[in-house]
Amino acid sequence: MSEPVRAPLRVAMIGYGFMGAAHSQAWRTAPRVFDLPRDIEMSVIVGRNEDAVASAAAKWGWAEAATDWREVVARDDLDVIDIVTPGHSHDEIAIAALEAGKHVLCEKPLANTVEDADRMAAAARGSDGVAMLGFTYRRVPALTRARDLIAEGRIGTVQQVRSAYRQDWLVDPEAPLSWRLKKDEAGAGSLGDIGGHAVDLVQFLTGQQLTTVSGVIETIVKQRPVETERVGIAGKGGDEYGDVTVDDVAIFTGRLSGGALAAFEATRFATGRKNELTVEISGSAGAIAFNLESMNELQVYDRTAPDGEQGFTRVIVTEPGHPYLEGWWPTGHMLGYEHAFSHQVKDFVDAIADGSAPTPTFDDGAQVQRVLAAVEESSAADARWTAV
Amino acid sequence: MSEPVRAPLRVAMIGYGFMGAAHSQAWRTAPRVFDLPRDIEMSVIVGRNEDAVASAAAKWGWAEAATDWREVVARDDLDVIDIVTPGHSHDEIAIAALEAGKHVLCEKPLANTVEDADRMAAAARGSDGVAMLGFTYRRVPALTRARDLIAEGRIGTVQQVRSAYRQDWLVDPEAPLSWRLKKDEAGAGSLGDIGGHAVDLVQFLTGQQLTTVSGVIETIVKQRPVETERVGIAGKGGDEYGDVTVDDVAIFTGRLSGGALAAFEATRFATGRKNELTVEISGSAGAIAFNLESMNELQVYDRTAPDGEQGFTRVIVTEPGHPYLEGWWPTGHMLGYEHAFSHQVKDFVDAIADGSAPTPTFDDGAQVQRVLAAVEESSAADARWTAV
Amino acid sequence: MSEPVRAPLRVAMIGYGFMGAAHSQAWRTAPRVFDLPRDIEMSVIVGRNEDAVASAAAKWGWAEAATDWREVVARDDLDVIDIVTPGHSHDEIAIAALEAGKHVLCEKPLANTVEDADRMAAAARGSDGVAMLGFTYRRVPALTRARDLIAEGRIGTVQQVRSAYRQDWLVDPEAPLSWRLKKDEAGAGSLGDIGGHAVDLVQFLTGQQLTTVSGVIETIVKQRPVETERVGIAGKGGDEYGDVTVDDVAIFTGRLSGGALAAFEATRFATGRKNELTVEISGSAGAIAFNLESMNELQVYDRTAPDGEQGFTRVIVTEPGHPYLEGWWPTGHMLGYEHAFSHQVKDFVDAIADGSAPTPTFDDGAQVQRVLAAVEESSAADARWTAV
Amino acid sequence: MSEPVRAPLRVAMIGYGFMGAAHSQAWRTAPRVFDLPRDIEMSVIVGRNEDAVASAAAKWGWAEAATDWREVVARDDLDVIDIVTPGHSHDEIAIAALEAGKHVLCEKPLANTVEDADRMAAAARGSDGVAMLGFTYRRVPALTRARDLIAEGRIGTVQQVRSAYRQDWLVDPEAPLSWRLKKDEAGAGSLGDIGGHAVDLVQFLTGQQLTTVSGVIETIVKQRPVETERVGIAGKGGDEYGDVTVDDVAIFTGRLSGGALAAFEATRFATGRKNELTVEISGSAGAIAFNLESMNELQVYDRTAPDGEQGFTRVIVTEPGHPYLEGWWPTGHMLGYEHAFSHQVKDFVDAIADGSAPTPTFDDGAQVQRVLAAVEESSAADARWTAV
Repeated sequence: MSEPVRAPLRVAMIGYGFMGAAHSQAWRTAPRVFDLPRDIEMSVIVGRNEDAVASAAAKWGWAEAATDWREVVARDDLDVIDIVTPGHSHDEIAIAALEAGKHVLCEKPLANTVEDADRMAAAARGSDGVAMLGFTYRRVPALTRARDLIAEGRIGTVQQVRSAYRQDWLVDPEAPLSWRLKKDEAGAGSLGDIGGHAVDLVQFLTGQQLTTVSGVIETIVKQRPVETERVGIAGKGGDEYGDVTVDDVAIFTGRLSGGALAAFEATRFATGRKNELTVEISGSAGAIAFNLESMNELQVYDRTAPDGEQGFTRVIVTEPGHPYLEGWWPTGHMLGYEHAFSHQVKDFVDAIADGSAPTPTFDDGAQVQRVLAAVEESSAADARWTAV
Repeated sequence: MSEPVRAPLRVAMIGYGFMGAAHSQAWRTAPRVFDLPRDIEMSVIVGRNEDAVASAAAKWGWAEAATDWREVVARDDLDVIDIVTPGHSHDEIAIAALEAGKHVLCEKPLANTVEDADRMAAAARGSDGVAMLGFTYRRVPALTRARDLIAEGRIGTVQQVRSAYRQDWLVDPEAPLSWRLKKDEAGAGSLGDIGGHAVDLVQFLTGQQLTTVSGVIETIVKQRPVETERVGIAGKGGDEYGDVTVDDVAIFTGRLSGGALAAFEATRFATGRKNELTVEISGSAGAIAFNLESMNELQVYDRTAPDGEQGFTRVIVTEPGHPYLEGWWPTGHMLGYEHAFSHQVKDFVDAIADGSAPTPTFDDGAQVQRVLAAVEESSAADARWTAV
Repeated sequence: MSEPVRAPLRVAMIGYGFMGAAHSQAWRTAPRVFDLPRDIEMSVIVGRNEDAVASAAAKWGWAEAATDWREVVARDDLDVIDIVTPGHSHDEIAIAALEAGKHVLCEKPLANTVEDADRMAAAARGSDGVAMLGFTYRRVPALTRARDLIAEGRIGTVQQVRSAYRQDWLVDPEAPLSWRLKKDEAGAGSLGDIGGHAVDLVQFLTGQQLTTVSGVIETIVKQRPVETERVGIAGKGGDEYGDVTVDDVAIFTGRLSGGALAAFEATRFATGRKNELTVEISGSAGAIAFNLESMNELQVYDRTAPDGEQGFTRVIVTEPGHPYLEGWWPTGHMLGYEHAFSHQVKDFVDAIADGSAPTPTFDDGAQVQRVLAAVEESSAADARWTAV
Repeated sequence: MSEPVRAPLRVAMIGYGFMGAAHSQAWRTAPRVFDLPRDIEMSVIVGRNEDAVASAAAKWGWAEAATDWREVVARDDLDVIDIVTPGHSHDEIAIAALEAGKHVLCEKPLANTVEDADRMAAAARGSDGVAMLGFTYRRVPALTRARDLIAEGRIGTVQQVRSAYRQDWLVDPEAPLSWRLKKDEAGAGSLGDIGGHAVDLVQFLTGQQLTTVSGVIETIVKQRPVETERVGIAGKGGDEYGDVTVDDVAIFTGRLSGGALAAFEATRFATGRKNELTVEISGSAGAIAFNLESMNELQVYDRTAPDGEQGFTRVIVTEPGHPYLEGWWPTGHMLGYEHAFSHQVKDFVDAIADGSAPTPTFDDGAQVQRVLAAVEESSAADARWTAV
């Protein structure tokens, strides 16, 4: 089958943890499900441990394995750099890649500090490459649909917002001290890891930005067994203990540019909640509500319906006209966690092909980092309202 | 105070709004459902409007109607004063009644100010009468059961708490300016009306007190049509507009005496949420979760269950051994909103009969008022942490 | 307060089990909640055990206790006979009462046999008294509302129906052999006790009758300990065993007069289901779904809504315009099991006052018995389709 | 059949509809997610329409496209024949493939008639190739887990069963007459298409077989627009009408070999239900319940838990120790519809590698066909109980 004009897009992925698996699955799946304007070549996977990265390459189907990301970024036979390393390394890799003219897809968080994030955003603005940030939940069809409804005015003026991201994998005090619990690698704990998702989602859904915040972050279990083996998200620990240097829980309130208050919670201590991301946007004409545990459903309330007939309507967002559903299964057949990564690849490749700027941009990511930094600042300043 | 055996308890109720209906139903029902140690006589109902109170007496089955609460409180042929007036009048009536040696059941909030609440609590401590506060939700069987489980250590150490009380009856900007929206009568709006329930519930369930808070309260719709007719909870409005002087929404965080953070939300602007009170207590060994919209159910999570078998167990709290269920229907037959008022009457009458002090006490109520006052203070002070 | 023209309605209740408690509560509550056209006098309660009935009278507030229902029915100072005895005695009492010119409210089932039911229905048609049958669930507001929506054509043509009433109180093989498990007293077991509710509900909601049925009934545990003490719905058993003579489970399919198939299940062996009555009516233009475990909610599906926006809307049926809600609490405050009994008293008293014929009629009850008898007949005939 | 170590497994897939997409995704994904004992080569895709199959090959990543399945089955450079054509062609292809010594994975239903199914089962028993049937839902982790719990005796003796598969894509009378509505191609309509899933699932979960059935099948909309274009599951119709020759709805009851009754429903007329497969197994010691709309959750009821603490526990089946979860995401990250197809490939490849016989076998499939045929026979015979 010959398609001369559409040169394949040659992708290098830096990193090979849990996110590497998800991104690999997306690069492999998106072209088989959607009609992409470019073919995909999974060219190189990069990691520091030679054996581990070779094994990941074989497992996930990358043509080559490499250990030096700088060399890879400098190669001129690659088009895309996909960054799935921990947050502290994002800035250096992304900026180098953008300067090398590459298109960059970067996992969230954009960076661990506002300064790094700002430099990355500046690099993205100054580059010919397409830069896109991986706040994947924006591309869960029910949430994309929610954004559309809100943008169309279906819930009227946004008057109140709440969002919580709750997990419980740290309730066990013996859960090991993984990189996600060290500030120098992970950034800001529950706030940065999952709170960032909640912040981005609220800003995405409302089309507004948080302008000021008040909140508290806290570490509940202050010392944990040092990790001896990295296994899945939690790892295994040994006899030695080390300090947890990130927060376990973050509770904060923000004010949106449109004036509404938004209540946030991010926690890894919500016993029994495995991966529950909820968001509810209350407006003058209606509301939407979503729970990641029922990720194919959107709850929609219409205040303009007749009295006595109002209620939350549970829409199963799996119908032909729903976002991204053209590629998948018949109505009522559920999508899962990783599907949104394929949607992300689709939109990223589409943007590369037509030269448009996909969202979330690096500027969007820097804004989220500013919000998170302001929460940390507020927490340190007696919870005072702190400008973003 | 000595009572001849099984002399009937002669009750006067001051007030006749929505709460008057609920209390009347409870005084009428409790002795027919439970084996009370005293018979009940619904002797007098008191209200300022002579016709309206006479009509309420006939409708609800009170033997007499009266218009002057002071005269009623002074009568020596009455044993109990049940106060269901708006919060600003509670202190005067309750203190007079306690000084007259009466037993007092007082609707929440205890008072509109901490000062009033403290004086009432002092009066209660100094009186021979039994004093009890109407935070009725404590007596929803699922919540009573939750408290028992937590007290037995079933969820271990409380590590994180969240509670929200959400309604939407003020989303309509033309909803009238009822007494509930005027600070001089109602106290503190969403914070005082429904936020108080959330605070009491969390303190009740955990057995702990909030020691410091940070938060924000806000009025979203600042002017509303002046109420021309009092109909149900919302009333009817006219052409004239007046200032809303209480908050529409309150979002705050508190620290419990045991150290855990607790996130609260009270709002009348949660579009589509009619009367949703949720509470979740996350502990080191388990969790409980409750939603008033499914008020007969308690969700219980047990971290000590085998791996792979853990999950929230939905217990329908309608079984013979469950709290208060001895008086009602077979397993699986649901209780409604007003049943908790009958449970309240039962416990109040039991306490009178055996001379014990029922909870919530007036001191409990004063503590809640101190929390709410601290939230208001924090809101006015840039959301700073404020000691209760 | 004098109201000479409205002579009070003097009520005698025959029976004093679980249903006696529910009916007493309703007679006591309805006039306090609704504006009834007649006052209610709870005059006499009747039971064979003199002590027990005296105790019930005192507990539930009946002015007199009596042991001979024939004498009571013959008295001319009574207006209403309320029958809450087991089904085998309904015909004799109801017919005597109707012949004595009394108004009769009769608990379901109307009778234990079609013959008895037909004689009762004939007696009702020939009497000046108002006769009404106690299929109470028709008066759960969400179900009354569902009937109205269907009658208005909101779901189009009924195309398919399912209803199941599932309990689990007999899963324990040692649950005692109560009167509910003896055919001569109770009639037809799960089929007659709870299956009858499902049949009535489907006929009520659709406005159609079942014309033919096919099904199976079965006794899973064939011998149980003879009941030594009647406690609640289940009682206590001894060492002796006796034969269970009614069915434990009934599964059957019927065809409605409009042509649609309806699938039914009635069981006391649905482990974990305490009192779950579900019904779903699927139509050409929409659907309604209901679950008694969430009895204040009605799920409504509208096929005429725009593509991509359809879903089941969860309407909390507690709003001012909803059926029977004028008497109760503000929006979102839940009703429980026994509220429907007060609604039943309201409609019964209204019908007496205005001389109308309330539903369900005794003819409706006889039709349900014919359906149940046809199911038994079908079960005995190899599940063959059997005309009702 | 001896395979050199790690020689890749060369797969040919016959058919390219909706199931072709799902199977392609699974062949592509399984080796990237699980540690398979053999590599996978997606060698050939076969379809009658040359252009369409070439396009499918390119889209889904098959190395070759072919139009004659007989030639493909005869090739000796292929190891596996994966059959995803409509049911009427399964027997000829599968038997040819088995006779050619190939391993065969066959989509459900095994065949459209019992005779065909029996011949296929005989061919499978007589072949060296591994034969496996695609009742994929067995490999949804929550259902695999449910089977394990039941097999371990966790719910005691199975006493009652219910399962329903409900869709609504035919409620619209103008939905076109696709091959799924023609008996000669599709077999038995709702009964064969989705009812077969319910039957297989119940037999799988209980480890028992249905021995006798009674039921009814029916076509509600008897004529539909002839399909002019095959688009997704429903297609597009023209002006001409043709007869629907399969059933729209099937309602039947069966008796399991262990004695319990099982109620079934399969319908495409359940307005508002998109793809709802529910199953509940009630036992003497507990119960399990499942709903495909919440496919990552298993509800488990334990009757041996203390009184007052029993309830359905909602287990989110996404934990490391849960079936198939070793290959996927961290706890709480949801799987979707197509994941079970990857699990199917995993088990199929494992069986090929270790020479074991995977389930469901073709004999299992023939048993399901016998059940469905007995339901049809019963329906034609006045719903009489009919031996399987």
